[in-house]
This record gives sequence, structure tokens and C-alpha cells, in this order.
Amino acid sequence: MYDGVVADLIDELGRLPGIGPKSAQRIAFYLLQSDPADVRRLAEVLVTVKDKVRFCAICGHVTDEETCRICRDPRRDSTALCVVEESKDVIAVEKTGEYRGRYHVLGGAISPIDGIGPDDLRIRELLQRLTDGEVTEIIVATDPNLEGEATATYLARLLAPMGLTVTRLASGLPVGGDLEYADEVTLGRAFAGRRRLDA
Amino acid sequence: MYDGVVADLIDELGRLPGIGPKSAQRIAFYLLQSDPADVRRLAEVLVTVKDKVRFCAICGHVTDEETCRICRDPRRDSTALCVVEESKDVIAVEKTGEYRGRYHVLGGAISPIDGIGPDDLRIRELLQRLTDGEVTEIIVATDPNLEGEATATYLARLLAPMGLTVTRLASGLPVGGDLEYADEVTLGRAFAGRRRLDA
Repeated sequence: MYDGVVADLIDELGRLPGIGPKSAQRIAFYLLQSDPADVRRLAEVLVTVKDKVRFCAICGHVTDEETCRICRDPRRDSTALCVVEESKDVIAVEKTGEYRGRYHVLGGAISPIDGIGPDDLRIRELLQRLTDGEVTEIIVATDPNLEGEATATYLARLLAPMGLTVTRLASGLPVGGDLEYADEVTLGRAFAGRRRLDA
Repeated sequence: MYDGVVADLIDELGRLPGIGPKSAQRIAFYLLQSDPADVRRLAEVLVTVKDKVRFCAICGHVTDEETCRICRDPRRDSTALCVVEESKDVIAVEKTGEYRGRYHVLGGAISPIDGIGPDDLRIRELLQRLTDGEVTEIIVATDPNLEGEATATYLARLLAPMGLTVTRLASGLPVGGDLEYADEVTLGRAFAGRRRLDA
């Protein structure tokens, strides 16, 4: 429908996750009407990001240096290690402000359907990090879904003989949610994980 | 939260219309994990599009040549001219397959709130195109909202003395819709524009 390069742009934008043909068209026209300098900046950052970004040699989090900002920070608690699936999860935990330890990014979760087994994740690197005995607690913060739970169970079994405290993030009702609309599994977990209210 | 260039990429993506911080993050990670050639192609098309794309010298539709494909096509009916707000609307009308005439893109609609008056639209160029007397019908296909209606009324008054047939797209119930859920203005228009069913 569109002439050459506009059609190309809409095509390329439409390949991005969560962007359908209508959104791609909308973004394309936004770009056509915006300042050339802005569009050039977006194009440049796309090229730079592929050249520069790599994964932290220690934890696997995205970074543009040899190690990430968190691994380089001497103020972080080296006795706690939070194991997550993706870099995005590191950011999610960081945003809570509740955690001052270090991270380990697995790069996914165990999923037999997708053919992802323990060997496809950064579990060998995790075990490597535990050899110096500095870490005393492992917080397994994989997603609360089938794959994340399977990964958590696998890690718990693997790490149990090492004498480490292995914990899992609590499941329960989301804050600001409505009991009536909670699914039965979540509500069941909320019951199982109930805590004493101290007066 | 993210290191330098990843943060830049998420920022730049988040500036695009309809892309919030979460989507920007999702797209950024998709790009980080995808083939460098794909990302480079997206970056290149962004640069090319700003260099190459211009607006058709006749109708104002986006094109990468002096005039657009529709204006260059000798098979199109030169007696009918469909006036639309944006290039996107040309594509929307083209997709119906109902129209074989030519187009004129105004580049917006009259909107006093946004400070857009008739002089900000390509109305002078429209009048210019009518001087040779080839066009006999103007189909005003501006959006069926306040600004589009105002623009349509303005054009109808402007063009009336020229002895042209000026028509407006029908308003009424959307096909596949439900009468019960139609708003009262649309339903009122559907009544006003009712058509005789021939047996």
C-alpha cells in the first residue's frame, strides 16, 4: 500500500514485540513527522547498543562494561545472592529498594516444552560463584509460573547439600488487589504463607 | 537503573507514541537478543526514511519520489477527488477497494483549540488543483469527529460556489456492530441517512 521505504519502515517496526500493523503505521508516521535529529539518535543508539552491550562476566546482567554496576559496587552485601531469570527481573527487584545483595541472572527458566534444560541456563556459573563460601543465602526469585517453579525446585535440590539457606519469594495476594478476584492458586498460597500479626 | 546505552535505548523507544516504559524495556531486550543484522536494518531504514520520504507535490501523500504512486497512475479517475486529513486515511480508503479516483491530503483538520486554521492545511493547493475543471466530485472524507466535521463544513461552503458536487462519507452503524451498543449520535445519523431497500 505504501511506497517503498515507508512500507519497509512499517514492516521493520511491525516485527518488534507487541507492535501490530496499526501501531507500526502510527509510529512510522510519528517518525516521518519528527525532527530528523531525533530519528538519527534512535538509529544510532540501535547500532551502538548491539556493538557495546554485553553480559556481566560475573552475574550475567546486561552492561556496557566487563562487569555490571551492581557487581562492581563494594557496598552490596556479598552474602546474599538473588537468582533471577532475566536482566529485567534484576531491575524489578532493584526498584523495590528491599534488597542490597548481589544477583545471578540465569538467562531463562527450565522449560522442557521449549527444549530448555538446566545446561542451557547459567547454573554452572552459579555453582562457580558459590565455591568461595562467601554467599550464605540464595534467594530464588524466578517467575511464579510453571517454568519458574520447576527451576526453583531444581535449584533447591541442587543447592541443599551445600549447607546454604535457599529461600523463595513469597506468593500471595498482590498489594492493592481484591480478594474476590484472586485466583484459587494464589489465594491458596496466601493462606499457606499467612503470617502472625503482632499487636 | 540500567547501564548507559541500554538506558538510552529504553529512553528513545519510550518516546515513540503508544510505547510506555514497560513496552520500551521489552522491545529493548528483544533487540539485545536479536540478530545484529536485523537491528542494523531497522537503524538503516530509520535513516533512509528521513532522507528519502517526502510528500507528493500534487496530493500531499507520503512518497519517495516527486509524486506518489496514485497521482502517477493514469488509470485512476481524475474527475473524483477524495479529501482526507492524513496519509494514513489514503491507505484506509484504498484498502476498501471501493474508490478509483484521486486524493488530496490536507495534513490535518481545522482545530481552533490546537490553533490549526484553514491556512495551516493544504487547502490552497486543493483550490489550485480544481482550476482546470477536470474534477467534478469532491468526496470529503475527514474524520467523523468535531475537527473533521468542522473541516468538512468549511470545505463544503468554500467549494459550493464552484458548481462541484461535494459529498461527505456516510455516518451510521459500523458493519458487524450491535445496535444496542451504538451511541445515540451515531444511531441518530444512521436514522437520518437511512436508505430504501429495493425488493
